[in-house]
Amino acid sequence: MTARSGVWITLEGGDGSGKTTQAELLEKWLTDAGHTVLRTREPGGSEVGHLIRDIVLHHRGDIAPRAEALLYAADRAHHVATVVRPALERGEIVLQDRYLDSSVAYQGAGRVLDATEVRELSLWAAEGALPDLTLLLDLDAATARTRLDSADKPFDRLESEKAEFHTRVRESFLALAAAEPERFLVLDAAQAPEVIAAGIRARVAALV
Amino acid sequence: MTARSGVWITLEGGDGSGKTTQAELLEKWLTDAGHTVLRTREPGGSEVGHLIRDIVLHHRGDIAPRAEALLYAADRAHHVATVVRPALERGEIVLQDRYLDSSVAYQGAGRVLDATEVRELSLWAAEGALPDLTLLLDLDAATARTRLDSADKPFDRLESEKAEFHTRVRESFLALAAAEPERFLVLDAAQAPEVIAAGIRARVAALV
Repeated sequence: MTARSGVWITLEGGDGSGKTTQAELLEKWLTDAGHTVLRTREPGGSEVGHLIRDIVLHHRGDIAPRAEALLYAADRAHHVATVVRPALERGEIVLQDRYLDSSVAYQGAGRVLDATEVRELSLWAAEGALPDLTLLLDLDAATARTRLDSADKPFDRLESEKAEFHTRVRESFLALAAAEPERFLVLDAAQAPEVIAAGIRARVAALV
Repeated sequence: MTARSGVWITLEGGDGSGKTTQAELLEKWLTDAGHTVLRTREPGGSEVGHLIRDIVLHHRGDIAPRAEALLYAADRAHHVATVVRPALERGEIVLQDRYLDSSVAYQGAGRVLDATEVRELSLWAAEGALPDLTLLLDLDAATARTRLDSADKPFDRLESEKAEFHTRVRESFLALAAAEPERFLVLDAAQAPEVIAAGIRARVAALV
């Protein structure tokens, strides 16, 4: 990335870990302080990405594992080049739901692909771009499941994978955070939302 | 690839070089000899690939160069895993219009992405799978264009740029063939179709 004057923050964690709630609280706090905030997500954070997301999440029938990883990487390449990078160059704060750590945790550790290869693929897609801060909302699989069940909406293809899979994803996220402690802030997502938000604000305040 | 008992033949070359004609003649010759032949293509040779092809070819607006390369690679990954490999395992002969050499030649000629990186991406997508034989229908840009237009008029500036691009694609294909002479058969596509077909049959007869 060249000429980055903005701040790029990604939120990671399993479904039901509260990423959306925390993104909303952080966005409000930053906006109230006068910052320009861009909320975005992967997959599907661009027009092309929306088409790709449709294929990955709603295609009937299996998608070959490497094809799935490449589709996520394609979404990432387009999203970073056309949405994230321009916003950072304008000096905005980008709050992004999921980035390459999700690919590594879900595709690599959770499935049949090599985690290092999936990470390299993502970095190639994004021309090496990494966020300034990654917020990991850490929650055990059983609690996450209970939260999702009570939300009472149909699961998509990924959400329907088994609890074991989610446990492996969680372990993979925690390993990624341990490998890059300066980029990650790990938060106990079982706490009350306002408690988590306070922890996030303390760290973000040093960046913006 | 494991347990490959079939034969995998790809056809490469610019538009207007006669790939379709030669694939049809070869398919007929092989079928008449009692072989089971699968005709396929990239991009778009699978159901998922058809969706991907729609994005690449019909999306309104630019697609970031790395995103486009990743979409082609995703199509390749799914196509090889779900169409080509099963057919080869059943002992069939796969005749395929375009494969990774096209990605390398067109990306290399486009000069946006590094050709070596594009090749590595394709090989990762296909788990290293390479055809038994690649038929390169080699034709100079002017002749190819005359065939496509069926109008022998001089190039204007834009068409000259296109001709330069096609010349670079051709040179890239020839360099790939020179680097892997055992895999490639280079054919002078300016010859009569039956003459080219005879040259192809002589080489294929040794494989099937």
